[in-house]
Amino acid sequence: MIYLDNNASTRPAPEVLAAMTQCQQNHWANPAARHAAGQAASRLLEQARAQLAQLLNGKPRQVVFTSGATEANVQVLHGLTPRDAGGEPPLLLMSGIEHAAFLKAAQLREAQGLLRLQLLPVDAQGRVSLDAAQALIRPGVQLVSVMAANNETGVLQPIAEIAALCRAAGALLHVDATQIVGRLPFDFTGSGADLASLSAHKLHGPKGIGALLLRENLAWPALLPGAQERGRRGGTANLPAIVGFGVAAQLAGQNLSEAALRQAHLRDAFEAQLAARLPLRVFGADVPRLPNTSCLRIGALHADAVLGRLERGGLIAASGAACSSGGQQASHVLRAMNVAEAEAQGALRFSLSRDTSAEDIAAALQIMGEALAPLAQAA
Amino acid sequence: MIYLDNNASTRPAPEVLAAMTQCQQNHWANPAARHAAGQAASRLLEQARAQLAQLLNGKPRQVVFTSGATEANVQVLHGLTPRDAGGEPPLLLMSGIEHAAFLKAAQLREAQGLLRLQLLPVDAQGRVSLDAAQALIRPGVQLVSVMAANNETGVLQPIAEIAALCRAAGALLHVDATQIVGRLPFDFTGSGADLASLSAHKLHGPKGIGALLLRENLAWPALLPGAQERGRRGGTANLPAIVGFGVAAQLAGQNLSEAALRQAHLRDAFEAQLAARLPLRVFGADVPRLPNTSCLRIGALHADAVLGRLERGGLIAASGAACSSGGQQASHVLRAMNVAEAEAQGALRFSLSRDTSAEDIAAALQIMGEALAPLAQAA
Repeated sequence: MIYLDNNASTRPAPEVLAAMTQCQQNHWANPAARHAAGQAASRLLEQARAQLAQLLNGKPRQVVFTSGATEANVQVLHGLTPRDAGGEPPLLLMSGIEHAAFLKAAQLREAQGLLRLQLLPVDAQGRVSLDAAQALIRPGVQLVSVMAANNETGVLQPIAEIAALCRAAGALLHVDATQIVGRLPFDFTGSGADLASLSAHKLHGPKGIGALLLRENLAWPALLPGAQERGRRGGTANLPAIVGFGVAAQLAGQNLSEAALRQAHLRDAFEAQLAARLPLRVFGADVPRLPNTSCLRIGALHADAVLGRLERGGLIAASGAACSSGGQQASHVLRAMNVAEAEAQGALRFSLSRDTSAEDIAAALQIMGEALAPLAQAA
Repeated sequence: MIYLDNNASTRPAPEVLAAMTQCQQNHWANPAARHAAGQAASRLLEQARAQLAQLLNGKPRQVVFTSGATEANVQVLHGLTPRDAGGEPPLLLMSGIEHAAFLKAAQLREAQGLLRLQLLPVDAQGRVSLDAAQALIRPGVQLVSVMAANNETGVLQPIAEIAALCRAAGALLHVDATQIVGRLPFDFTGSGADLASLSAHKLHGPKGIGALLLRENLAWPALLPGAQERGRRGGTANLPAIVGFGVAAQLAGQNLSEAALRQAHLRDAFEAQLAARLPLRVFGADVPRLPNTSCLRIGALHADAVLGRLERGGLIAASGAACSSGGQQASHVLRAMNVAEAEAQGALRFSLSRDTSAEDIAAALQIMGEALAPLAQAA
């Protein structure tokens, strides 16, 4: 089985699993306990925090471990100051292509009167429009939230430019870095972001663990109050997963650029060879993208028909974010890019990882050629 | 090292670790993905849900997996209806001995005007006062929250009686079942509770996973919005931990009563033999307690002095909840029981598990005798 759905989840690295098992067998005491067993566990926790901070060019104390990026994102919303200077609910700007769960969380809070939400539009390539950003990021905006790389198209967002606009307007900037970390260098301190979210299972780490990064001296209230994480996240620390996250961060930092170049090369070859055989439209092809992601449609084929055939042939891909794949609605990301509904229904996402080999891509192309030739002729 | 701090965290069972490793190696796909790998993962998720439901005498669809009991507890608060019939913030009654993080979360929401909080007092044995409960649980109360068993004293709370009062008053009942599950039978359906919280790592399961149980047909909004858990909890499902939780639940259900009786026997012998040698006060000794928990003080000795000596002798215990052990304040649980501040500073918690053997208890008694004889003479 060729697995090209790494933006949904990646295979945990063997080193990650080994570290987690070792931790679970020997250091299962509560890291908040004052006794020796707890303190030994606590040291492992701090080591993992340092490993993650290093990958992100942050300081360990800036890292708040959460149960994943979704929790970190909700903590960002939760921490908004309830009333702005004018006594109004806080004004939040989000790109229209943020993760569906994050948009939903913001919309629910808007419906409850807890915030005012404005969406930043994207252009036809799926990049946040800087013209629109310049017009909308004004004094009075409390927080701007733009993801570093989109989960469906892989398109990189103009974080540096948006950070400059936020600085000028006195707005905070939150970056959902879930898809970029481990795939391209992400320098939290240099990014200009005040907050960032990420998740371990997108970089060959465990599920159930993520982090919220906070700019130095930025106080941010806990979504889950408690004594852990310097009062920024309660609940018993999920130490085995945190240890696995630390190892995953360390592994991701090794040869990151080489891994990125290798994946970009494979992805580009995949797209080129596919385009030579089938009528192809690649979404976001004209702007910088994550090296591992290819979002495309083949002729007028519906994604479901394609994916079923590919899977029977031994190739696993996706039609969009796994998180919304239960539904039949067209991707909100492609719709925001002004892709027609019918066309968006054909979108396929192929996402590689550092585990993906040239042989995998060759096999994927062969499977696709065989499975899709009859469909493509009909299309 | 003799470990008697199982109320802080328990050793994951070997069967739990094996199931988790197997899952991480073979089923790391996103369970929300529609492809075969995702569907295989999803089947494991549902199997674990059924295992947990069985232990709690609930139905699988009543189980919402969360990152732990703390998240489940906060989701309970989050789901309160913002305004009651009179247009006021919801009235919440909580026992004064709930987990410190949960009390803190409620107090923070009270300070924000999101709810009105009243505490249910406990008697000198640490049981919620039914007289007070009868007076306070009145129409107009939206939710009552009482834990099934206290984490520090192990004292069981009169849930059935409180459930009857709630039913009569039209109030919802939430039970934090974190410390009882796996130690005594807990029948969610029979308890009369509308909601319950628990955590896997207290029953030899993994850290980082817990659950919120919901009465049939009770809609409760997500704290982390998203498509997972029937729309009741977003974020990629933490499948390996969920699978481990399922196995832990299954193991806990096997011979639960025998394990409880065995621990009660060991705990009672521990207390009796200690009392024969040292001046002892056992908190909550006169009311039903968890079979594994002993909260006591020895003469006028300060807990820190005792715990340090015990640890050097090879015995790990605690002075209270690990979650608040960073601080130096006397336990809010003992203070609520009207134990004097100075006396509460002496409280020690010994908590057994099904891993604890008679030899462990004999060794613990020997360590305590040797370590504390000089202190006890001085006391």
